[in-house]
Formats: sequence, C-alpha cells, structure tokens
Amino acid sequence: MSINYPNGKKFTKKRIPEGKKNVYKKDDSFGNRGMSFEDDINETNDYYLAHEFAVIHKKPTPLQIVNVHYPKRSAAVVTEAYFQKPSTTDYNGLYNGYYIDFEAKETKNKTSFPLKNFHDHQLTHMERVVKHSGIAFILLHFAYHGEVYFLPAEYLLRFCETMERKSIPKVEIEEHGILVKTGYMPRIDYLKAVDTYLATRNK
Amino acid sequence: MSINYPNGKKFTKKRIPEGKKNVYKKDDSFGNRGMSFEDDINETNDYYLAHEFAVIHKKPTPLQIVNVHYPKRSAAVVTEAYFQKPSTTDYNGLYNGYYIDFEAKETKNKTSFPLKNFHDHQLTHMERVVKHSGIAFILLHFAYHGEVYFLPAEYLLRFCETMERKSIPKVEIEEHGILVKTGYMPRIDYLKAVDTYLATRNK
Repeated sequence: MSINYPNGKKFTKKRIPEGKKNVYKKDDSFGNRGMSFEDDINETNDYYLAHEFAVIHKKPTPLQIVNVHYPKRSAAVVTEAYFQKPSTTDYNGLYNGYYIDFEAKETKNKTSFPLKNFHDHQLTHMERVVKHSGIAFILLHFAYHGEVYFLPAEYLLRFCETMERKSIPKVEIEEHGILVKTGYMPRIDYLKAVDTYLATRNK
Repeated sequence: MSINYPNGKKFTKKRIPEGKKNVYKKDDSFGNRGMSFEDDINETNDYYLAHEFAVIHKKPTPLQIVNVHYPKRSAAVVTEAYFQKPSTTDYNGLYNGYYIDFEAKETKNKTSFPLKNFHDHQLTHMERVVKHSGIAFILLHFAYHGEVYFLPAEYLLRFCETMERKSIPKVEIEEHGILVKTGYMPRIDYLKAVDTYLATRNK
C-alpha cells in the first residue's frame, strides 16, 4: 500500500479509555446468542480479506443515538441510545465481482432450524438482492452436530412463502443446502459453498 | 410481497420512547457536517429501492458498546458507547448485478475539494473493491456551486498516490469526474453517472 493518507485525521485523542473495551455482552433478544459462531465468521472474513479472496464485512449494529456527551480531552461518549431493528442482513460485500449478502444464525435444535430469528424486512431484503442478481444466502449452524450449512435465499424465500411451519427440517436443509467445510484457517469456508452454488446456478 | 413472517418477533415492547427521537445532532468531527447532503443521498437510495432500480443502503455508525441497561417493560438502553473509526465506506449495495461502494462528502470550498475527510482505511477499502471488480467512487458536493460530482475511486487513489496536495482542484474533478444530475425525484441521480462510467469503462 503506497497511498498517502491526506492530512491524517487524529483519532488518538478519541481513543476509548483502557478497561472500557469488550465489557459489554450482547443482549440475547437481538439474536446474538451465537457469539462464537459470529466470531468464527468474522475471522473467516478477515482471512478472506487478508488473502485477497473477498471483501466482506459485518455491518455495525444499528443504534438510534439520543444523547452524546463531549467531555474535554477525551472521546465523545454516547450516553443514551436504543437498538434498532436492522433493515438488511448482517453481512455483505464483494467476491470475484459478485455482490454477496448473507445472514448467519445458529441453533441448538437437532432436527430443524427455527425461523423466528429471521425478520420480515430481512427476507424482503434478500428477495431484492436475488432480483437484482446478487448472491443472497443464510449460514445455519447446527451447534449440536457441529455442522454449518449454506442455504440459498431462493430456497428460504420459497419455504417461507409456501410453508406454515416455523422451522425448516434439517433433512430439507441437507437436501437444498450445501455443507460448509469448517476448520482452522479459514474457520468457516463458505466461499467454497458459494462456488458450488454458482456452478449449479450458472449451468 | 407474500412472505409469511415466521413467528413474528415483537419489537413493539422495544419501541423507543416518544420524544426520544432525532434529538441527537451528529458530531462535526465525524465528518457529518453535510447532513442535508446525506439526507438527500438517503432519500435517493429510498427512491431507487422503491422503484426497484437498486438496493443500496447506508451502513450504521459503528459504535463500541460498553454498557447496556435493561429496564423492565421498556427498551434496552445503551448507556455508554464510543464512536469507532469506520473500516469501510458509508454506502454499499447492488445495482444491476454490480457491487456498488461509495463515500459522500461535501465542502464549502469554491475551487478545490479537501481530502482530509477520507481516512486511510477507507482508501484501502476502495482499492480492494476496485481490485475485486466492484464499482467504487466518491460523491463530492460543492455546496457553493450546488454541484455534485461522481469521481471514480481509481482516480482518487491515483491522485492520493502521486500527489502531495491535500485537496483535489475542482478543474481536475470536472475533467475526471461526472457531473451528477440533481433534482426533486431522485434528489441526486448518481446511478446515471454510474451508467456513464460503466459505458466508458467497459469500452
């Protein structure tokens, strides 16, 4: 990288005080129970980025900021903010010229995947992505089995449209999804599943 | 839309109390001086979304959450959080199968555009997007002239690599950028500029 950073903006003054980091444990009700699965995906994305395979990031948690305090000589502190319903999926980015968009969830269930964590507007968003020729999917982690599946949004949307059921049976996911190779580096190699999906789709 | 929302998650309980909304005015130091320009872009994106031209969203402001309070019978309140340096650009999405990624800035300067608001990692991010065949650009608003320019990231990156200057002269932007049509609906019709850019690039 030989980019000259123009007039380097100083963030040192704005640094978060030591001992203030990572104290917060996310609220279960926002569907973040699967922290270690989320961490694994973030590390996978870091791996893809470092190895120039893809440029995929998690979006920040949407917050409605109500009050901010600006103390002298230290970082601005948000003192009142509320969680907002996300209007899109959590992850998006770019892979080999393709627009990539996905949501990742996990369950302790053994035989089916509950759909309650997918919001209406997230389904709408995935439908739009499919319509505009992007690649939309979900990554489903069956914690009990230690398995991760790639499931195309097309299948999820069709399932939600036609079914009354509140969960997708695991056998259906095995049939319509792709088992994702997990390991050390990268942890959850979902781009291989994207390749497999593309090979089938583009046939 | 006929998607059956599975087991509808209730957010009514979590609603932000009335009178708590839009109180916050963003901190100037985070490059958000151009609120009305930002609003115009957000409305443009809403227009594109509603008319099925594109699926482009602004990313939430990244915050490091330190403390959250969970009052009974009302929404969880973040009581301590700090602004984080964004690791990507503010806007991304999908247009006609293309991955779109951009940053929007405005200036009151008459003859040049200061580069100080572009962070190093944002330039790195745009370079990665270009490398992976996405469309990366900046939208520059000259408030004095009432003009908005589309400038491809390729040009911005070349400028930052080779030049010592802390701003891009307006004449250079006129030569290497594309003047964006502004109006009522949509406010800032930057997708037309994307079309023009693509027509040139794909020649």
